[in-house]
Amino acid sequence: MENFQFYAPTKVLFGRNQVEQLPESLKAYGQNVLLVYGGGSIKKNGLYDKIQTLLGEDFNLFELAGVEPNPRIETVRKGVAMCREHQIDVILAVGGGSTIDCSKGIAAGTFYDGDPWDFTGDSSLVTEALPIVTILTLAATGSEMNGGSVLSDMSKNEKLSFHSPLTIPKVSILDPENTYSVPAYQTMAGSSDIFSHLIENYFSKAKGAEVQDRIAEGLMRTVMQYTPIALEEPTNYEARANLMWASSLALNGLTGRGKSGAWTCHAIEHELSAFYDITHGIGLAIVTPRWMEYVLNEETVDKFAMFAVNVMGLAVINDKYALAKAGIRELKNMFTAWGVPMTLPEVGIDEEKLSLMAQKAIEHSALSTSSYVTLTAEDVHQILTNCLV
Amino acid sequence: MENFQFYAPTKVLFGRNQVEQLPESLKAYGQNVLLVYGGGSIKKNGLYDKIQTLLGEDFNLFELAGVEPNPRIETVRKGVAMCREHQIDVILAVGGGSTIDCSKGIAAGTFYDGDPWDFTGDSSLVTEALPIVTILTLAATGSEMNGGSVLSDMSKNEKLSFHSPLTIPKVSILDPENTYSVPAYQTMAGSSDIFSHLIENYFSKAKGAEVQDRIAEGLMRTVMQYTPIALEEPTNYEARANLMWASSLALNGLTGRGKSGAWTCHAIEHELSAFYDITHGIGLAIVTPRWMEYVLNEETVDKFAMFAVNVMGLAVINDKYALAKAGIRELKNMFTAWGVPMTLPEVGIDEEKLSLMAQKAIEHSALSTSSYVTLTAEDVHQILTNCLV
Repeated sequence: MENFQFYAPTKVLFGRNQVEQLPESLKAYGQNVLLVYGGGSIKKNGLYDKIQTLLGEDFNLFELAGVEPNPRIETVRKGVAMCREHQIDVILAVGGGSTIDCSKGIAAGTFYDGDPWDFTGDSSLVTEALPIVTILTLAATGSEMNGGSVLSDMSKNEKLSFHSPLTIPKVSILDPENTYSVPAYQTMAGSSDIFSHLIENYFSKAKGAEVQDRIAEGLMRTVMQYTPIALEEPTNYEARANLMWASSLALNGLTGRGKSGAWTCHAIEHELSAFYDITHGIGLAIVTPRWMEYVLNEETVDKFAMFAVNVMGLAVINDKYALAKAGIRELKNMFTAWGVPMTLPEVGIDEEKLSLMAQKAIEHSALSTSSYVTLTAEDVHQILTNCLV
Repeated sequence: MENFQFYAPTKVLFGRNQVEQLPESLKAYGQNVLLVYGGGSIKKNGLYDKIQTLLGEDFNLFELAGVEPNPRIETVRKGVAMCREHQIDVILAVGGGSTIDCSKGIAAGTFYDGDPWDFTGDSSLVTEALPIVTILTLAATGSEMNGGSVLSDMSKNEKLSFHSPLTIPKVSILDPENTYSVPAYQTMAGSSDIFSHLIENYFSKAKGAEVQDRIAEGLMRTVMQYTPIALEEPTNYEARANLMWASSLALNGLTGRGKSGAWTCHAIEHELSAFYDITHGIGLAIVTPRWMEYVLNEETVDKFAMFAVNVMGLAVINDKYALAKAGIRELKNMFTAWGVPMTLPEVGIDEEKLSLMAQKAIEHSALSTSSYVTLTAEDVHQILTNCLV
């Protein structure tokens, strides 16, 4: 296990009706609140009205609506201007990871003289941030319990991230009922995202981080167990609750700290989203099994065999390559069974820009230097090509 | 999954040489430091000298040495007087759970007009507390990452606890090398304690908290894997690291939040310690398998069978009672293999006070009302009697 710092100070209020604690949670930080949300699903499901009622006359509420699924830097800039104009004390992010990530850019950008896009090149430029309170409506990114933010500049086809302890939400309200209305497509994309975070942390060169790996395995098995139930029965509380809590714990440091190394599939998928604006979790599900097949070798086979047994539930057999391959096949079958479109053409991507995206993935990440198995642009191109069919 | 609040804001600095960050960690809170420690093992292993060197002239260091293995309320009172006299800004607890628990009593007691023993009857009396920084030297109680404190008043044969978010350590320095010198007896007692925390949370009436259960299983398997290694080879970094991180995560809310109900074996063991001052973890190891055998019934058998398979690693068989019993037997074998004395007479306890301790366990806890299987004093007496051989 490598040296690490673990810091996950978010107060999580989990369960039915926890939104009742919203006024008290905000009050600690001030009266001027910027409510940030996405496409308006919170108006349909009643959450928006509930918030208005709860905050009533006691707060000065300003609104930034329309945060995009891959949140745009333009929206961050708009939010920064609002925070400065209205002397915002606290940001209330209501939505999924995109809304929360956008809010983090705004929170930090408010105190930064330059353009908030700069953060994606250098996280240390974040030196102060407004406090953030979140109400999560999608189990997926884990942004509700960490300081990471992924932003997109579509004018440059770039989707990049920054990380700061200053942008970790102070309070996150996790009511599984707020995910009842999430459509099947977003539900499975969210589960794919959770699964991918766990896989990215699990496959690492670091040795002896068994605590982290056993936790990751447990969370993966939970996602495997409950995703089909949530898809079949969207208002199954137990399923939504376990997926929601798994999403937060998958990316709050528990499974990744003590295990260094760059992530792989996220770096590749970010290029797919940057060029084609596809749903992040779907892109991850498409790329992951092809990446696994590609990097299976003498050095990685034991870990893939462990994955096959401890996560996918396969019986131990002597041929570790056969076991590893069976595990990867099971993973692909799992995504397919959820209904994920498992090839690039199904999400509107052909071979035209595969080479360019592979090159960009190398440029924008540490894929070639510190990922589990280091990759060249040619390797990434081949992996993406394997995603065509 | 039941509604819950999760709040684990401790900044954990994990790994070799993290003590280098001690000055900076303390500086945030002030200059006047109360160094609290136990029997002096930190003088033998060099940690005491290291701290003196690191803090040098920059801090005013006051010392409270000699905290007992079951920390006494008298020591808490002494610490409170010192904090007031020297206007202490921050407490530096260097040791295991006892030292940290004692420090929590001192931290809160400093701001309380009455006697700090009152906290054990009513945790809400804790309204303010000095900040606490810890350097952990024993993987066991998890006190380094939670707000709980167990204190003893031996004049009344009472060992009771209080809990407050205000006494959660601000920073905990977890260097596995600081546990290299822990003797075998304390190592296995510590592992028994970790295991017991996980078991107490695992066996709960709450349904559908799969995230919590999968994490608990993973942590139990980690403790099973590494305890024999740490016993065999006390300076095995990987073993000490995994046990240390497992100890913190076993009791920071991850495996218990969302699952209500009172703990059982801890309530019973606290009476053994209160009357006989035995090592907490050893008492837990003795009581746990006998409690399991006693409460195995039609309502609990499925969970015990799950424990047998997912934790003890037994193969699924049709007879769930046989499976459950085999799992309990394996647990007992595991403790025995570690070298734990597995009967009460081996730790100096005969039948004389079993009935009295059973009665006290009922009085001091919610055993009779909200434990996994509710127990009467007669039940507890029988469980303790079963611990005689």
